[in-house]
Amino acid sequence: MRRENLRINKERLMSRLDELAKVGALEGGGNCRLAFSDEDKAARDLVMGWMREAALDIRVDRFGNVSATRAGRESGPPVMTGSHIDTVATGGKYDGALGVLAGLEVIETLNDAGIETRRPLAVTFFSNEEGARFAPDMMGSLVYQGGLSLEHAYATEGIDGTTVADNLERIGYIGDAPVGENEVQAFVELHIEQGPILENNGNKIGIVEGVQGISWTEYTFTGRSAHAGTTPMARRRDAAYVAADVTAYIRRLADEIGGGQVATVGVFDVDPDLVNVVPRKAKITVDLRNMDNEKLKEAERRLEAFVQEAAAKEKVGVERCRLARFDPTEFDPDAIARVRAASERLGYPAQPIVSGAGHDAQILARMCPVAMIFVPCVEGISHNTEEHTDDGDCEAGANVLLHTLLDLAD
Amino acid sequence: MRRENLRINKERLMSRLDELAKVGALEGGGNCRLAFSDEDKAARDLVMGWMREAALDIRVDRFGNVSATRAGRESGPPVMTGSHIDTVATGGKYDGALGVLAGLEVIETLNDAGIETRRPLAVTFFSNEEGARFAPDMMGSLVYQGGLSLEHAYATEGIDGTTVADNLERIGYIGDAPVGENEVQAFVELHIEQGPILENNGNKIGIVEGVQGISWTEYTFTGRSAHAGTTPMARRRDAAYVAADVTAYIRRLADEIGGGQVATVGVFDVDPDLVNVVPRKAKITVDLRNMDNEKLKEAERRLEAFVQEAAAKEKVGVERCRLARFDPTEFDPDAIARVRAASERLGYPAQPIVSGAGHDAQILARMCPVAMIFVPCVEGISHNTEEHTDDGDCEAGANVLLHTLLDLAD
Repeated sequence: MRRENLRINKERLMSRLDELAKVGALEGGGNCRLAFSDEDKAARDLVMGWMREAALDIRVDRFGNVSATRAGRESGPPVMTGSHIDTVATGGKYDGALGVLAGLEVIETLNDAGIETRRPLAVTFFSNEEGARFAPDMMGSLVYQGGLSLEHAYATEGIDGTTVADNLERIGYIGDAPVGENEVQAFVELHIEQGPILENNGNKIGIVEGVQGISWTEYTFTGRSAHAGTTPMARRRDAAYVAADVTAYIRRLADEIGGGQVATVGVFDVDPDLVNVVPRKAKITVDLRNMDNEKLKEAERRLEAFVQEAAAKEKVGVERCRLARFDPTEFDPDAIARVRAASERLGYPAQPIVSGAGHDAQILARMCPVAMIFVPCVEGISHNTEEHTDDGDCEAGANVLLHTLLDLAD
Repeated sequence: MRRENLRINKERLMSRLDELAKVGALEGGGNCRLAFSDEDKAARDLVMGWMREAALDIRVDRFGNVSATRAGRESGPPVMTGSHIDTVATGGKYDGALGVLAGLEVIETLNDAGIETRRPLAVTFFSNEEGARFAPDMMGSLVYQGGLSLEHAYATEGIDGTTVADNLERIGYIGDAPVGENEVQAFVELHIEQGPILENNGNKIGIVEGVQGISWTEYTFTGRSAHAGTTPMARRRDAAYVAADVTAYIRRLADEIGGGQVATVGVFDVDPDLVNVVPRKAKITVDLRNMDNEKLKEAERRLEAFVQEAAAKEKVGVERCRLARFDPTEFDPDAIARVRAASERLGYPAQPIVSGAGHDAQILARMCPVAMIFVPCVEGISHNTEEHTDDGDCEAGANVLLHTLLDLAD
């Protein structure tokens, strides 16, 4: 078969996606495979089994990142693809999993066709991309790339009070391979868009030009608990009121900053959380994202100013903890051009796009040329049990991945 | 000793308050004796022990309300005092406990002085006054008075998913005495103010003229969970945003209604409560109180209108659950006059006052003449581990209670 006619096996790809979705399946649909949980371990075991069946050279590093390499005619750093297989607590079937299994599918396709590449090809799943249990997100690729020390990452305490190291050891995924000294020729990640743009425009492929900057901050407000009936409004030091005020404000902030600025309060906890007690304490997280780093910094400044003013007015204390901060990332123009060329050759309707979500690809961009391929997801819904991408779109994305990798590996 | 020179024993009263405060004591101060918990049981056992030592006739009813009666020269319905010994999760030493132990102290004082009254005197502690674990509050006095059926109260599910009946049975406080058919000659309750007014005015005694109306509503908002980075602001259905908007609004609402209107969001829970997921669900409680029932109704109407509008704008569903609703209560003019007279005879600086908190007294007011006595608490702080009332103020309140009860019982 001529290389340009090569296509991935849609049935195999979709049946593996179905198989993986059974691990950590939630009643009524969706998945919960929080990083380093028993479900994460089961998913790792399943995918590593397939890697072994494909006769790949498997490498587990000290942080549980798993790479499977198919040798090239020449040795040297591999052209890599991959993503992650952990999910948020109420996640879907495609976020992360598609990129890993499509990468494996590309390699199986080459195996089936008996095609050799000049450079080695590798498919990797990185640990704890979601950051839903242990912050920050993209932790595994960060450790892989060297941007976060193994010691620091190991010591990270999760939402349940246990550490990364405890859990990695418990699930048996502390491998032998060192971290922070890896060499990669190029990296391409296939992922669902997790937004509505491709679907709205009727496109099958997003040629990703970069990733929005991400800023995560946790604010803890401490006021004074008091009787809800007898404490005059003017004498209150209501931590929940300040937290709510900030939560309502960030909607206005996003509008004012504009240019695709998004702002989310995802965590909102109060104490003592009783109907007739003015809350003493409130904890919220604020997630800000923008492709323009200057606008993102402006959003951070304005948020901080509002928080300080709102807390001072209510005589409430503020503790501020930065959970994550990533500058916006621009991908490699040459790698982007290869994704565009592959989409065009395959005849898929495509468009340039920016990623609103963080991805392992943006961390890899610190060490090698990187591109990403997006496929649509229905109604843009993601981080949700109803996340869905049509089979044909998964197939299209995997085919673009196949031809982009072939191009880069030769 | 002439009756008008009779005074309670401050040392005994304070040492019993200290003793009771050891039950369910929190590290660093304060108390947690949620209704029908093990701590509640231990407190009941302790107080009943003292009632027994005072040779009182003890009666435990089907709902765990405990009355201890000292016989009068005549039989017939008793003149009653009392309050409650349960607390909120981070409560203090005086709320409820002072009223019960001062009532017991009045009886001990009469015992010591060998004084007989014409009518029987009773001291009662009512079950679950706080409503912090099982809503509504004042549940025990409601069942005692007949305003809430035993069956309904038994079946109430608490914040931990267990029922009142399960817990009452577990702690062994389902007594033999029937509920809903009680007769009481008059009821007087001593309580800390739980607000700053007496302290600000330098008064030791509040002559309580009535209790604010109370309205508790739980709102559950259901939107759609979505990715915090990729979902444009305009496409969000953010349940936490709507809940925060309502929480910020009620502060403005209280200002606009005026006339002592207070408004509190005490519970604020979101789901899935993760930094990078737009919350699908948010639950809040709104506590509204006013002495003027028309103003309270206006506050309820405006709140509901705002909630519906805010939810509709965000395309978020709303479920509304009324947790409690009590009209404002005006106490008995004759009973109030007797409290005023007792304060004057004792020479304590006193003032008329309205209660912002709900009290068992307002439920008893449905069945007999009722009055209340307030004493100051430092900085108006209550429902808080730092709740404090000076010994001298506890003494003053108990002495006013003594002479009011003597007056009513003769």
